[in-house]
Amino acid sequence: LPDAKIPEEIDITSDLGAALMGQSLVFLAIPTQFLRSILLEINNLNIFKEKYFISVAKGIENNTLLRPSGIVRDVLGNVTCGVLSGPSHAEEVARSLPATVVVASKNKKFAKRLQLVLNSNRFRVYTNSDVIGVELGGAIKNVVAIASGICEGLGLGDNAKAALLSRGIVEMARLGVALGARKSTFFGLSGIGDLVTTCYSHFSRNREVGFKIGKGQKLQDILKGMDKVVEGVRTTLSLKKLSERFSIDMPITTEVYKMLYEGKKPIQAVQDLMMRQPKSEMEDLV
Amino acid sequence: LPDAKIPEEIDITSDLGAALMGQSLVFLAIPTQFLRSILLEINNLNIFKEKYFISVAKGIENNTLLRPSGIVRDVLGNVTCGVLSGPSHAEEVARSLPATVVVASKNKKFAKRLQLVLNSNRFRVYTNSDVIGVELGGAIKNVVAIASGICEGLGLGDNAKAALLSRGIVEMARLGVALGARKSTFFGLSGIGDLVTTCYSHFSRNREVGFKIGKGQKLQDILKGMDKVVEGVRTTLSLKKLSERFSIDMPITTEVYKMLYEGKKPIQAVQDLMMRQPKSEMEDLV
Repeated sequence: LPDAKIPEEIDITSDLGAALMGQSLVFLAIPTQFLRSILLEINNLNIFKEKYFISVAKGIENNTLLRPSGIVRDVLGNVTCGVLSGPSHAEEVARSLPATVVVASKNKKFAKRLQLVLNSNRFRVYTNSDVIGVELGGAIKNVVAIASGICEGLGLGDNAKAALLSRGIVEMARLGVALGARKSTFFGLSGIGDLVTTCYSHFSRNREVGFKIGKGQKLQDILKGMDKVVEGVRTTLSLKKLSERFSIDMPITTEVYKMLYEGKKPIQAVQDLMMRQPKSEMEDLV
Repeated sequence: LPDAKIPEEIDITSDLGAALMGQSLVFLAIPTQFLRSILLEINNLNIFKEKYFISVAKGIENNTLLRPSGIVRDVLGNVTCGVLSGPSHAEEVARSLPATVVVASKNKKFAKRLQLVLNSNRFRVYTNSDVIGVELGGAIKNVVAIASGICEGLGLGDNAKAALLSRGIVEMARLGVALGARKSTFFGLSGIGDLVTTCYSHFSRNREVGFKIGKGQKLQDILKGMDKVVEGVRTTLSLKKLSERFSIDMPITTEVYKMLYEGKKPIQAVQDLMMRQPKSEMEDLV
């Protein structure tokens, strides 16, 4: 964030031990696929007992198919780890523009405490106890955002994009319920809220990757030109595996996988999505 | 739609009797506040028996607080009247860009028949039996779109807009359930789908009105300069009454009402929305 001013009260250090020492609340802002390696370092320091963790990563680890809070517990054992998610592009939060987010933890007291610590007139914090749903929403929305970018790259218009979002949230919820989430969470800030921001904001790298795919570029060429992590590209791999393992129909994710990794032509993917058997909306929404 | 080509098979007439004669399926594409007067003319012609009606209007009549299909039955008696809704800006549909819509009717056979008649590889049609939910979603989204335009006029950014959409859908659903709709319908194409398109598309007049309010213009001055109907401006009045009659908390609608009709400053309205009591997301979503 080159233009953002870091408040003077914040010390910046690359010394993990110094950063953690004496702190009870630890925010883990590390991309999903790199989270485990940092946690292993924390584990080696052996100073993580009685700390509370909050993950803000949005993805699913490729090999283990674990969500970020699951990776934390996998490495550190039975620590308390909540998650923070929702539509909160850093570029805007840093400028003190208003945002709303969700903190999720099964530990209601911890969620409530986090809410009180973080809530302000610029940053409105809701609580939710459905950690699975909040984390999955944040992960899957990146894949739908890639699809949304593809739609734009093809010049398909606003109606098509809205269709993609509406049906994207349905397939998110379908997988989520199979994994133990509450369906309703996907219709909240960490689901549809974050999805909308990611699909329409010019800050979104996932959308940008999709846009270039829609314009006919190849994934490896696109990634070569980017210096930041694009979570959705890796999450697509994890979701493909999860949908197969749990036999969940995820048509949008499947088409994104085929376009990213099997060279399927975007226009053909759209055609295949539109020509599916006509159905009732209620089968999915009830 | 100045650039759209009307197919040669379509006859255009201003003679209501000639338009209706011999047709079994009648699409009513008339703005809500003018629907009753045209229906009264149809009623006088006395040729509406055994016809099926489909309304595409998105609003709530100001004096009666009836939805469009309710106005149809109020005037024509117990006729079959389905509704068609969802993200389908005419500008794009006319160019054969892909769109998805919902047809809703309590008469499942009729809904299914409409689906088969209208479905194509460019126009994907879902059915839903919740007429109340589909019509309310289409009406209320225009009011949230005004709020969304105000957000943009104030320069508040993508995070704020996503918050507005997420919380807007929650208050839509809250009113809907009180009026007999299914909550889940608001999370489908005619709810969140249409809401997203209206809030982000440059075709939306509701958004445009909001944008100008956000920039400090007065409602009467804005409307003077527009030659098309802006449904949301009138729907705000109906929703205000409905929320009071059913004692439903609709914070966004209430603030839009105050900005449009009581001269409340937009920046104050945003401040008041952000400073409400912190809460759990789950109270609303379950």
